[in-house]
Amino acid sequence: MRGKLYGVGVGPGDPDLMTLRAKDVLEKCSVIAYPVRKLGEGGVALNIIKQRVDISGKEIAELLFSMDPDDEVRKKCRAEAMAKMCQMLDEGRDIAMVTLGDVAVYSTYMYIDREIRERGYETEVIPGIPSFCHGAALARLPLMIGEESLAVVSMAKHNLAKAEKALDSSDNIVLMKAFSSIPDIAAMMRARGIPLDRATVMSNVGMADEYIGPLDPERSYGYFTTVLIKKGD
Amino acid sequence: MRGKLYGVGVGPGDPDLMTLRAKDVLEKCSVIAYPVRKLGEGGVALNIIKQRVDISGKEIAELLFSMDPDDEVRKKCRAEAMAKMCQMLDEGRDIAMVTLGDVAVYSTYMYIDREIRERGYETEVIPGIPSFCHGAALARLPLMIGEESLAVVSMAKHNLAKAEKALDSSDNIVLMKAFSSIPDIAAMMRARGIPLDRATVMSNVGMADEYIGPLDPERSYGYFTTVLIKKGD
Repeated sequence: MRGKLYGVGVGPGDPDLMTLRAKDVLEKCSVIAYPVRKLGEGGVALNIIKQRVDISGKEIAELLFSMDPDDEVRKKCRAEAMAKMCQMLDEGRDIAMVTLGDVAVYSTYMYIDREIRERGYETEVIPGIPSFCHGAALARLPLMIGEESLAVVSMAKHNLAKAEKALDSSDNIVLMKAFSSIPDIAAMMRARGIPLDRATVMSNVGMADEYIGPLDPERSYGYFTTVLIKKGD
Repeated sequence: MRGKLYGVGVGPGDPDLMTLRAKDVLEKCSVIAYPVRKLGEGGVALNIIKQRVDISGKEIAELLFSMDPDDEVRKKCRAEAMAKMCQMLDEGRDIAMVTLGDVAVYSTYMYIDREIRERGYETEVIPGIPSFCHGAALARLPLMIGEESLAVVSMAKHNLAKAEKALDSSDNIVLMKAFSSIPDIAAMMRARGIPLDRATVMSNVGMADEYIGPLDPERSYGYFTTVLIKKGD
């Protein structure tokens, strides 16, 4: 019998914030895989699951999905990763592909899922706690309440235009991967007359340099930085 | 020693989508509480946790937070619920207050958390999988990918104006509690030239009348209906 591919969201970092289903699936699968853009990148999700799942005896497969500007390099990489996965599934092995946070939030797993299903294999997606839900819990702030709306924008490519549109049209705004955009976020708020204390920064949660507090444009922040702006109070 | 209040997100309905932390906390607490707007409302979250947590011997407390239009009725209700909780905490009992989905997504727990902390008690918030992450996992759709933005709007009060603003300013849109707004959502999409097949309906997931599929304005949908519109593909 062919194996099954699971896309597993392992949550925001705290291993206890994995779901019961994620733990069951990770324990059952003989292969733990993760897609990376560069080899050696994938340590974070693995470190999370190790703390609650015994991974000894499992095959750990780092699958390279290159973001090289050259189309041919990307295609070749993708074909190799897909072939490797299909081979393991053909051998009857179940694969758990892990994603930090939730599988539907800025992860490439959904495309892999579609391609593997199109090749006739069975797959399943296990959702995980998104980092912004964890941040809101730690900051004791609702993402939305009553009739409030929420917008979520990634600042990975410093997407200030989308952030401004979101800020102008939603009550609350989550800006992910915001670490290098903090001064611009402050400027964007000032330009709209939104006091800076309406923004809460959640940075490197669970790490030595964790910071959860008001937005200070003079401070520097770690890589895993999310900002929640609540216009209304 | 005084007890501690935990706000526990139990996830979207599937008991296996509770987190390990939620299960640990629910097992540890001697009181399982849930806020209701009308007495007898709270069965859903309790039915979820019962399937993975042994609640025998625990006190089950339904706490009424009335939404009566009369200010005095609401205040009296709130004072009674708070007094009851503080009494249990003073007796050294830990309380787990359960919320469907995530605690930061349209739940009133955060206000209770603040008030209890202001009275000098210790509290903790445990995030849960929001229903829209579960829906996206079942529909095999990313909520956002690459540089896409997401907006989330509750249609509980048929808030078409906010939904339109979100649709005009974000790449992807989640409309929660949309069951009675489906024809208007279809009209809103048509007015903008967005093909209806860009909308996926996730309705009464895990129930007998579950529906996950394209938006059909002629069909009727169950109470727990979420719509995901992806403008881009």
